[in-house]
Amino acid sequence: MGVNSNRVEDLPYHNDHQTTTVRIPSDLDLEAMPPLDIHRVCLPPKQSTLQKLKHKLGEIFFPENPLHRFKNQTWFTQLLLGLQFLFPIFQWGPEYNAQLLKSDIISGLTIASLAIPQGISYAKLASLPPIVGLYSSFVPPLIYSLLGSSRHLAVGPVSIASLVMGSMLSETVSSTEEPILYLKLAFTATCFAGLFQASLGFLRLGFIIDFLSKATLVGFMAGAAVIVSLQQLKGLLGIVHFTTKMQFIPVMSSVFSHRGEWSWQTIVMGFSFLGFLFTTRHISKRNPRLFWVAAAAPLTSVIVSTLIVFLLSSKNPRISVIGHLPKGLNPPSSNMLYFNGPHLALAIKTGLITGILSLTEGIAVGRTFASLKNYQVDGNKEMMAIGLMNICGSCTSCYVTTGSFSRSAVNYNAGAKTVVSNIIMAAAVLVTLLFLMPLFYYTPNVILATIILTAVSGLIDYQAAYNLWKVDKLDCMTCLCSFFGVLFVSVPIGLTIAVGVSVFKILLHVTRPNTMAMGNIPGTQIYQNLSRYREALRIPSFLVLAIEAPIYFANSTYLQERILRWVREEEERIKANNESMLKCVILDMTAVTAIDTSGIDTISELRKMLEKRCLQLVLANPVGSVMEKLQQSKTLESFGSNGVYLTVGEAVADISSLWKARA
Amino acid sequence: MGVNSNRVEDLPYHNDHQTTTVRIPSDLDLEAMPPLDIHRVCLPPKQSTLQKLKHKLGEIFFPENPLHRFKNQTWFTQLLLGLQFLFPIFQWGPEYNAQLLKSDIISGLTIASLAIPQGISYAKLASLPPIVGLYSSFVPPLIYSLLGSSRHLAVGPVSIASLVMGSMLSETVSSTEEPILYLKLAFTATCFAGLFQASLGFLRLGFIIDFLSKATLVGFMAGAAVIVSLQQLKGLLGIVHFTTKMQFIPVMSSVFSHRGEWSWQTIVMGFSFLGFLFTTRHISKRNPRLFWVAAAAPLTSVIVSTLIVFLLSSKNPRISVIGHLPKGLNPPSSNMLYFNGPHLALAIKTGLITGILSLTEGIAVGRTFASLKNYQVDGNKEMMAIGLMNICGSCTSCYVTTGSFSRSAVNYNAGAKTVVSNIIMAAAVLVTLLFLMPLFYYTPNVILATIILTAVSGLIDYQAAYNLWKVDKLDCMTCLCSFFGVLFVSVPIGLTIAVGVSVFKILLHVTRPNTMAMGNIPGTQIYQNLSRYREALRIPSFLVLAIEAPIYFANSTYLQERILRWVREEEERIKANNESMLKCVILDMTAVTAIDTSGIDTISELRKMLEKRCLQLVLANPVGSVMEKLQQSKTLESFGSNGVYLTVGEAVADISSLWKARA
Repeated sequence: MGVNSNRVEDLPYHNDHQTTTVRIPSDLDLEAMPPLDIHRVCLPPKQSTLQKLKHKLGEIFFPENPLHRFKNQTWFTQLLLGLQFLFPIFQWGPEYNAQLLKSDIISGLTIASLAIPQGISYAKLASLPPIVGLYSSFVPPLIYSLLGSSRHLAVGPVSIASLVMGSMLSETVSSTEEPILYLKLAFTATCFAGLFQASLGFLRLGFIIDFLSKATLVGFMAGAAVIVSLQQLKGLLGIVHFTTKMQFIPVMSSVFSHRGEWSWQTIVMGFSFLGFLFTTRHISKRNPRLFWVAAAAPLTSVIVSTLIVFLLSSKNPRISVIGHLPKGLNPPSSNMLYFNGPHLALAIKTGLITGILSLTEGIAVGRTFASLKNYQVDGNKEMMAIGLMNICGSCTSCYVTTGSFSRSAVNYNAGAKTVVSNIIMAAAVLVTLLFLMPLFYYTPNVILATIILTAVSGLIDYQAAYNLWKVDKLDCMTCLCSFFGVLFVSVPIGLTIAVGVSVFKILLHVTRPNTMAMGNIPGTQIYQNLSRYREALRIPSFLVLAIEAPIYFANSTYLQERILRWVREEEERIKANNESMLKCVILDMTAVTAIDTSGIDTISELRKMLEKRCLQLVLANPVGSVMEKLQQSKTLESFGSNGVYLTVGEAVADISSLWKARA
Repeated sequence: MGVNSNRVEDLPYHNDHQTTTVRIPSDLDLEAMPPLDIHRVCLPPKQSTLQKLKHKLGEIFFPENPLHRFKNQTWFTQLLLGLQFLFPIFQWGPEYNAQLLKSDIISGLTIASLAIPQGISYAKLASLPPIVGLYSSFVPPLIYSLLGSSRHLAVGPVSIASLVMGSMLSETVSSTEEPILYLKLAFTATCFAGLFQASLGFLRLGFIIDFLSKATLVGFMAGAAVIVSLQQLKGLLGIVHFTTKMQFIPVMSSVFSHRGEWSWQTIVMGFSFLGFLFTTRHISKRNPRLFWVAAAAPLTSVIVSTLIVFLLSSKNPRISVIGHLPKGLNPPSSNMLYFNGPHLALAIKTGLITGILSLTEGIAVGRTFASLKNYQVDGNKEMMAIGLMNICGSCTSCYVTTGSFSRSAVNYNAGAKTVVSNIIMAAAVLVTLLFLMPLFYYTPNVILATIILTAVSGLIDYQAAYNLWKVDKLDCMTCLCSFFGVLFVSVPIGLTIAVGVSVFKILLHVTRPNTMAMGNIPGTQIYQNLSRYREALRIPSFLVLAIEAPIYFANSTYLQERILRWVREEEERIKANNESMLKCVILDMTAVTAIDTSGIDTISELRKMLEKRCLQLVLANPVGSVMEKLQQSKTLESFGSNGVYLTVGEAVADISSLWKARA
């Protein structure tokens, strides 16, 4: 039998390739297989440490290669592209026309009618004066329209960030007893949120928000929505003395311990408008062309309820109203930023958490609508835009703003084409701020509670949670941890637990990777899981194992034990069935995508341990980086000339032909 | 051309297999390939959630399947095996004979000669009375010999645990000003260390110690060794007033600010014995048969130096001595355990850290010698043995003990065969405790410093650190973090940083996985990395990409962007070279060992985005769990009948034959 394999004698491995045909001996079960070329396993092309570092850093910080558009362009085009990169307005500006403007005016006015009552309501959610909510719907949209790369994002205050800011600040400082300090802290937190967001974008660390997985966010939003809804019981029932705590238990006990303060007028009004709002939302949901019904409902409710209260005011019913709101544009607030003092840490912490949450919402919303219209939103650039918008906002009496999901959806449905709709909305808010503020004097607080209730109830996504359960039980657990953590403990701790569970899941997968015995699918060179492919057959005298994870310190001990158990079980099986003795263990390394020094020690120890039991250990298809480390650590040499093959098939063919030649 | 592929029409996928031959159209570049069977991709065998959970928990907690020996045995054998499992003495006991006893007596006496001076020295390292070191060399070895499964582990106090305990307790409580409180805290910490160790073993959470990777430990041990060595300057220079801090800077400043206290007699004696100890160690290292030279050196030094000081005592030199040591056996200390009071948290923290460190050393040493003699050490059982030993120790005036590396090496070299050598050692310590204590009165403290210095200098492993640098730069960084963290900050923080860096490395690998374009190796069905295998060829109209990581929330956004960039770059390349248009993107999913809900969303969004650009997305060889989740989330259906193939080769063959048929 002519076996002439000259593959790996000339160690160390080089990048030149030579192949020789090895015919498989005919008295093995392998005779059905075609003759097989044996290929050398290559090392990856040589790179210096610096080159590797450069490549790695490029992948970490510039995965989308942002400079590729600048390649092979004249300096003028490069300048224009640069301007377009910094200010997306240069991208769509030249092509802007009256047709687009018409669409943008319609959608801009639509979102304004939503933004004004929502602005007032969300400011109350953050325990801030209602006027701050309107200020925040004026300056930030203007700044975003200059810098932002999404065309459909409607910018302004959002429920989650407002809620988190309110809950975190209220735990230390009371908004009713120390209103100035509270306001200062809110602006300072906004400034830190902006700084954090902008620096994440500038340092291209945007991938940090990826760690808030969808499962975490589903649970978090539902938990936050429940908390906010419970808080609204204050307005809905007309309670005057209410707890400032945010957790489930103190809120519920506060609701029932103040039963004497419940006001039936408020309750009747609240539930009627709640019914109205939910009905309009239901109509718009069933018929998306009637989107304006739901979009106009909040403003309608505000107008109607204000009128009712105004008409009833002479009869002095027990319905609390917003009261006097100052007229005029955003006053500067840079003198209110609070950079030293006992509450600085609180402001920073609140800023970080509201910053990351509003960023997540803004980017997720931007990406969603971009994918619907098939354009790209650059995450890192968006972060800088949102960050700058919040930094400027903190100096002009605004609190944390971002792209709002509900308003962006309305904006999109109303036919917005560019960010000009944000400018139109800001203009409408400007008119309100300058002339219409006195009209809100009689607006009842209960109507704001109903608007918030309707908005946040949409954040509870049963369906998504059920899908998580169906597809991935551990993802569902993350979701539940985040939900209950937020509901019963606190927002930051709930989020931390959920991120912890997500990371634990990754670590668990690495710590306890899957290993499986593989068999050959007859007539092919394919080796597949024996328990999954029933037609796959074991190769006599061989045990083929696939490892489905990188080999790291965290799993090297486990893998060593597990592989030895596979060998033991295979030997027991062979003994029971009187088959031919096990002589060779092949590790399919295709899915071992990385290895560290502990992993290399394990491989080389395993080789020694199997050798003592007269078993040969063979590696099949180690990936580039693994091959490199095996060589650098001299482990490859110890495997000798028949230790590393390109495929399992080639390993089986070559080793059995060697046995045949020796016999 | 006869193409009759009836593979995937009948969705959902089943476990029955049928294959049909597809001949590849002859005018493609693929004509050199052999005709190809197309195989169905199978789902893994159906399992209920409970079965999956059971399997997963089994892999997490019982990877080595400890009950396999009990299968198919009579009840008597099972009972015997059970007893052997709990008390390994029943395993080797029946076969014990005089020959083995002889070996064990020799090795036991050898390690006793090392254990007595080391016990005294290490107790001083932990700022405990020297006698506690001897007590700790008596009770724990006896308990370990009953329960432990290693045959070569020599049990007693060790340098790292002593050092860490000393440094952590000294930062809050002074051992000279409040000796009783300090002693109480030490015993309490030992008790918690034992409880923690035993419960780790009992709950089968032993894999937690795997997170202290080799790289972390190399750095930690070197850092700890430097700190200990610096601490010994106190004894070596004869300084009386010394800092209790452990960091580099306060220790060095303490050494130089007390220059007036340096005693030349102490220095001369210290450096002479240091030279003697290092010389003997060098001799034993060069000639392993002379192991006894190094093993006997510490006891010799103690005897000789004690004699010198005794003879010089009338001349009253400035050499400090140990002084009076109480005679007698370990007094009970359970009444000294301290379970409530202001320092409880400190005791618990110290217990946890010394517990995990001593466990790591004990298990690593046990495994090392077990692999040399080819027997197995059960990690979880060892943890219970070490834990129980420490719990009992804390009630009999012992502090934290574990298997010592230096003494176990001597034990092994001296020919120890079973744990009886530990019993012999304990007996020798017993004789010392009962009769020989007065002899240590004149033993100079400087000699203990030299013994510690010699012992810990062996912990600095330059070679290992250099190997880490050569093989894995990030592992080397972990090592350096751990080294400098321990040296300049503190032991727990240094360790935390190092573990953090190790975990960060795993997360980084997951967050930014490798993706690569693959090509066909002519004449085979092998697809390999184009940049690594120069003979691999691109397939016209196809882009084959391999993803080298599970697809998780942490990398799904990145992967989506990166794959789109691959497609964009491939299209640019094709345009530049005027090749045939890109029509199909194949993702080789072999190394995608898991997927979560975010990953599934990404895959399905990617499919839609590519479809909009008239590109087909095809998955090749998804592993079992991925296939299962694709099906549960209905993503598989959206891929249709030509969306999932078993190998890249089959996908290429079948899709190009379909194109041919359509043309």
